[in-house]
Amino acid sequence: MLNFIVPPKQGIPFISVQTMAKIISDYGVEQCITDLVDALEQDFLRWEKFEKSSRFASHSKDGVIELMPVSDGNMFACKYVNGHPINTKRDLQTVAAMGILSDVETGYPILLTEMCILTALRTAATSAMLAKYCAPKGADTLALIGNGAQSEFQALGMKAIIGISEVRLYDVDPAASKKTADNLSNSGLKIVICNTLEEAVLGAEIITTCTADKRNATILRDNIVTEGVFINAIGGDCPGKTELDKNILMRADRVIVEFEPQTRIEGDIQQLSSDFPVVEFHRILKGEVPARTSANDLVVFDGVGFASEDFTALVFLRDLISKQKGYELLDMIAQQPDPKNLYSIVNSYSRAPAAAMG
Amino acid sequence: MLNFIVPPKQGIPFISVQTMAKIISDYGVEQCITDLVDALEQDFLRWEKFEKSSRFASHSKDGVIELMPVSDGNMFACKYVNGHPINTKRDLQTVAAMGILSDVETGYPILLTEMCILTALRTAATSAMLAKYCAPKGADTLALIGNGAQSEFQALGMKAIIGISEVRLYDVDPAASKKTADNLSNSGLKIVICNTLEEAVLGAEIITTCTADKRNATILRDNIVTEGVFINAIGGDCPGKTELDKNILMRADRVIVEFEPQTRIEGDIQQLSSDFPVVEFHRILKGEVPARTSANDLVVFDGVGFASEDFTALVFLRDLISKQKGYELLDMIAQQPDPKNLYSIVNSYSRAPAAAMG
Repeated sequence: MLNFIVPPKQGIPFISVQTMAKIISDYGVEQCITDLVDALEQDFLRWEKFEKSSRFASHSKDGVIELMPVSDGNMFACKYVNGHPINTKRDLQTVAAMGILSDVETGYPILLTEMCILTALRTAATSAMLAKYCAPKGADTLALIGNGAQSEFQALGMKAIIGISEVRLYDVDPAASKKTADNLSNSGLKIVICNTLEEAVLGAEIITTCTADKRNATILRDNIVTEGVFINAIGGDCPGKTELDKNILMRADRVIVEFEPQTRIEGDIQQLSSDFPVVEFHRILKGEVPARTSANDLVVFDGVGFASEDFTALVFLRDLISKQKGYELLDMIAQQPDPKNLYSIVNSYSRAPAAAMG
Repeated sequence: MLNFIVPPKQGIPFISVQTMAKIISDYGVEQCITDLVDALEQDFLRWEKFEKSSRFASHSKDGVIELMPVSDGNMFACKYVNGHPINTKRDLQTVAAMGILSDVETGYPILLTEMCILTALRTAATSAMLAKYCAPKGADTLALIGNGAQSEFQALGMKAIIGISEVRLYDVDPAASKKTADNLSNSGLKIVICNTLEEAVLGAEIITTCTADKRNATILRDNIVTEGVFINAIGGDCPGKTELDKNILMRADRVIVEFEPQTRIEGDIQQLSSDFPVVEFHRILKGEVPARTSANDLVVFDGVGFASEDFTALVFLRDLISKQKGYELLDMIAQQPDPKNLYSIVNSYSRAPAAAMG
């Protein structure tokens, strides 16, 4: 029972979009991200305990559907997530994610949840955790390139963990920047909408690229990136979908990844040869390799999102809803009295009266 | 909208265990299996259209958690399924499955469902379809070895598709056989509970083994299997979990599998070398290879369950509930007016009044 929120026979807890929004709003976005960074660090420190694999990806003309399974031997997590940038033209989400957390000992689900909002939170927490170890000391200004669904979470994460005070927004769609600025108007951050990417990047110690186009784009050109910054590049996360000029990667003092085999396929480093040197983040966290050796270093996080981060987020959610209630219970798993008598569930609806054995 | 049951903004249709039981009972178990065999044949005939992979399996001490993804380019299906035989001692199900069917063009889920009952149906339909092409003509008697959760569905499938009239039951647990006999008492089948496996097999043209023990067992010994039978071996479906004496496989005239790369890992043929000759079922169905060349042939189906069968079952279910209603709608995918404004959902719960931009 240690892993379950309620005995599985009562049903499987389900967190809807509205329940998720309320839970997170009640607890506070910045507090969620702060707790998540702590939990992510604990899980990245036990990196070897996780059964890891690159995500399963089914590509189609306009998008991708992915499965991201991972287990620590005690719990199993899997996220279903798509990526269809074209969906915004259909008035649908680019990403429609859901997640399941399970108990390894019984194989039963512990909870089922929306993961659109939860993914934005865990991505912001991952970025902020990376910045904590990789950004220059005293970083105060964030350039946020791409002001879509992730942007507010990214800004609040960098505020909560790094203490940035100014966010410089740039998007090819000015309405997106306006939306982000409006949403952050009460955040305590100084928000500056920029007309050009160059203007946004000027003076920022942290540059976050979180654009959604599914193509090899050069969002950041080499000649506008100065020394001494930390680039948090999280939008290039799919084969054929990159954001950085490869010269930025080649002159960087350190390129950090989550799980190297997956990032080789999906990250910005897909533009480079398979022996291009990268460091997995857990090694930075453990102190095996320094993130930077001087304030002038250029450090790049080539983030693609790894399954263990969703695992961490799902366990965080399980703990949160164990205290706060409000979830539904889904009748998802058969629970007839005799486990071998699955047929009895169907039979209970049949109209014919039971007869003696033939 | 072709693939969706309801517009995705209304929510994601969810089929609970009780709804599934009612739908199937209303439509009839035998009718479901009959429709499913038709649909399975259509899908196996277009085998090349499916994006196939061996299932993802996470093994632990007492069980396994699996993901079974597949796509035909129009729809994507994935089943989450565990296998924990020890669960029956905990008063829990051996298998606690759920499934998702998605639209490839948008990446959005079309439906979410329990798959414990649906898997039993699709497995029975697959077995019956194999028997249709592989059993000797005029097969009348089924030996059912292992009388657990699958057994009634297996018996009804063989009745509906093959026209068997007698089922001979054997299980190491006599109570399981009694349960199956009781459940089938109104089925029109002659049911015989046998005290030994030898007695059950005697005179049967079709032998189905569907036992659940997670070990290399020899459920069927070579010396009790005569010529001219069809063995439907569906319980050996995991590394280290087999049912057949390997001599049965070696003397069989034909060993048929679903998707060879997966069966090499999971099926009874895991006991044999990797070049042991097998034939994928789609080739039998297309007439490329005969299932049997004489009434005396021994034909074995080494069934492990393939993702495309779940795909077929999920599409069948989608079509069925498009007519019959009764499903719930889950608030699973964010649906705020501006797709880029995910944060607005969280913000709508925050108590602070909106202020002017800072």
